[in-house]
Amino acid sequence: MSDIIERLGHIVGASHVLTADGDMAGYLSEPRDLYRGRALCVVRPGSTAEVAAVLKLCNDEGLRVTPQGGNTGLVGGQTPMNERDVLISTTRLDKVREIDLPSNTMTVEAGVTLLRVQEEAERVDRLFPLSLASEGSCTIGGNLASNAGGTAVLAYGNARDLVTGVEVALADGRVLSLLSKLKKDNTGYDLKHLFMGSEGTLGIVTAAVVKLYPRPRAVETALVGLASPEKALAFLNLAQDMAGADLKTYEFMARIGLDFVLRHAPGAREPMEGKHAWYVLIELASQGAEGLDARMMGLLEAAFERELIEDATVAASLDQRKAFWALRENLSEMQKHEGGSIKHDVCLPVASCPAFLAEGTAAVEAFMPGARVVPFGHLGDGNIHFNVSQPVGMDKAAYLARWEEMNARVHAVVARYHGSISAEHGIGQLKRELLPGVKDPVAYALMKSLKAALDPKGTLNPGKVL
Amino acid sequence: MSDIIERLGHIVGASHVLTADGDMAGYLSEPRDLYRGRALCVVRPGSTAEVAAVLKLCNDEGLRVTPQGGNTGLVGGQTPMNERDVLISTTRLDKVREIDLPSNTMTVEAGVTLLRVQEEAERVDRLFPLSLASEGSCTIGGNLASNAGGTAVLAYGNARDLVTGVEVALADGRVLSLLSKLKKDNTGYDLKHLFMGSEGTLGIVTAAVVKLYPRPRAVETALVGLASPEKALAFLNLAQDMAGADLKTYEFMARIGLDFVLRHAPGAREPMEGKHAWYVLIELASQGAEGLDARMMGLLEAAFERELIEDATVAASLDQRKAFWALRENLSEMQKHEGGSIKHDVCLPVASCPAFLAEGTAAVEAFMPGARVVPFGHLGDGNIHFNVSQPVGMDKAAYLARWEEMNARVHAVVARYHGSISAEHGIGQLKRELLPGVKDPVAYALMKSLKAALDPKGTLNPGKVL
Repeated sequence: MSDIIERLGHIVGASHVLTADGDMAGYLSEPRDLYRGRALCVVRPGSTAEVAAVLKLCNDEGLRVTPQGGNTGLVGGQTPMNERDVLISTTRLDKVREIDLPSNTMTVEAGVTLLRVQEEAERVDRLFPLSLASEGSCTIGGNLASNAGGTAVLAYGNARDLVTGVEVALADGRVLSLLSKLKKDNTGYDLKHLFMGSEGTLGIVTAAVVKLYPRPRAVETALVGLASPEKALAFLNLAQDMAGADLKTYEFMARIGLDFVLRHAPGAREPMEGKHAWYVLIELASQGAEGLDARMMGLLEAAFERELIEDATVAASLDQRKAFWALRENLSEMQKHEGGSIKHDVCLPVASCPAFLAEGTAAVEAFMPGARVVPFGHLGDGNIHFNVSQPVGMDKAAYLARWEEMNARVHAVVARYHGSISAEHGIGQLKRELLPGVKDPVAYALMKSLKAALDPKGTLNPGKVL
Repeated sequence: MSDIIERLGHIVGASHVLTADGDMAGYLSEPRDLYRGRALCVVRPGSTAEVAAVLKLCNDEGLRVTPQGGNTGLVGGQTPMNERDVLISTTRLDKVREIDLPSNTMTVEAGVTLLRVQEEAERVDRLFPLSLASEGSCTIGGNLASNAGGTAVLAYGNARDLVTGVEVALADGRVLSLLSKLKKDNTGYDLKHLFMGSEGTLGIVTAAVVKLYPRPRAVETALVGLASPEKALAFLNLAQDMAGADLKTYEFMARIGLDFVLRHAPGAREPMEGKHAWYVLIELASQGAEGLDARMMGLLEAAFERELIEDATVAASLDQRKAFWALRENLSEMQKHEGGSIKHDVCLPVASCPAFLAEGTAAVEAFMPGARVVPFGHLGDGNIHFNVSQPVGMDKAAYLARWEEMNARVHAVVARYHGSISAEHGIGQLKRELLPGVKDPVAYALMKSLKAALDPKGTLNPGKVL
């Protein structure tokens, strides 16, 4: 092994091969503290060529490799599981290679943080729309490898939709150069989509060409109170018809989530006079600076007339807009004050969301009376974070010990509506055992064929996804 | 062979196995008359199960299969090349299985024509945006298998972007059921993108879930005269900034193309007072019915002030809008009256379009003085149909005999700007020999690995793409 460490040092520089427990600790823990990683070493290559050389060496020598970006993943995909495994951190691949303004593209290396991509776009008066809670530390490479979602999917799509090209180091050290800026290219199979969402099991994304969008010149934000998920769905459809592509945000939460935020978040205030069973945060944005406020008012009035919404308040200032967003964004964090939370990151056909919410809640309450369902998320995408807080007073560890049983109940409802048990977060380690049970058997077999074709020695991210 | 015909008849019904030359003729010719197909028989399955059973039989017996939709492809991808091959026509798979309005999805079988998908969407007050010249007869299955482009890509994306799920019959007769309506699903590799754009070489798309969009309530169309491609690019960027997602169309053509249409199309009229070197057809559309005319005027005025455009005329009626579109849409057809045309369906980074147009034209004129470059297409996508009409008075056959030499000159310029030699039409037979020369070698090798993994016996669409 010391021979391997030395050879890795020859590739990336000895100071970029970490072997001491203290040096590796930050790479081996993960945000939810569900997994404690083990690794032979952490290697920090500084270029695509170095990533490829490290991969080739490991593949040749029978060592297995776990790629890691900002280490913010929620399913343990970035955490190595064996003390003989090599962790490749992409964080030193941190260059913005090019911004092509007329083409509206930016070529970035995998280790650039999402926040920096957003900021570089803003600097040239463009928008990179991908936006999620960990954007300050997650990397664009990790975002693409996991096909990240977030709050802008409704208008702009998932991470995979924001890309025209990728550069990928393959298991055997070959580099696939597909850094295309093209909006149309029908010369053969679309290989980039194979790697996006593969969680580093088919190759390591080392760079990408991302799309830039015009920065909206006007934004209107409203918080809306509603009686039921059915009404929220009907209001969504109305907003889509009246605002089309200007509808940028449609986030929702149940009253209990707002209660948690009001109880625990310093400075959080009841956003409107009355209380409502459900809340929607809706945002319109457009390039035309004029008239958007009237369009938001028109939409809200039409919704009142049809009795879809009970109350609404439009943000009158940037501060108020931020306060509305904070209510939504603090939810996950504030839920921690209420004890253990068993999580489900599910997606349903949009039309099935109300039925899922009713039946999922019933299933949880039948399984464990007192458990508190706190659904929230991206209703416009059919993506519900169906979190369940423990019953008041229950022992946290005893509650969390029932994670899998709870999951099974909720996922059974998801299956009934042809939903997904992982809308945004991926499979990683957390849901690997569940995958064969929810995937079309032909699809699962095909995934295995692809893995065998691209990584025959099983070098890349062992124990994840498949 | 008569045994095979009989067994195929048992699967699909004897009347749906065509073997007579006259019955097969329509399936074996193709729009550009470049290829004359040969086949053992034409099989017309009526269901996914029948497609799968036919595939299994052929794969087991070592027969090769060419899938065909509406037979409108321009690169010979749908034309079988061997008298032992079986042509599978998907046109009897013609059911609209479901429309889910709140989810904004439609589940359709592969043989439904694009026009019918558009009409079914319109019937429920939604838009299916894919739009192209052959929409009356091309099928949605063929559109997806070839990742069709067309005139709405700027705002809505290519065919692959308009789909949430597919059903695919694999080479060995297994059926991959991925008819998902989900907007987010990170449970493993994205398999649907592998089949879209694979031109039937990896599987046969038998059904799909397509996305529906709100129907725009207001449309503004203008024809604009400009001095140069550089100005057209700057005007595009201005329009993107001022109109964002409301910019739905940005088609361009050189004056010579307009001359051809005016000369040959009955009823075509000079659209504005003066003549201009270049023309752009620009369209804005939005959900808000009010104010779009003022926004179009504001955009045109801003473009005048910056001296980006020379003249503009806004369509004052639906008839005038149709007349503008006809100038653009008749171009390909009218070019036929000017003799032979050697075609290039290329895509460039948007920023490189002006340089490509200049250098591509120079390369053509150096190669063959008098040859007339007639560029037009989807400038907003960087997609140029770089057609070259023969010199006046030259023998047509002698001109067309130089197709490959001409291609080589133009494609060399495309390569210099990292463009694509097939933006929309695919590879098929026409560009198969060119592919290894333009594709990243690792990408080409990977395509071969995928083909071997999914279709080890080479059953599907032999002689196409790879």
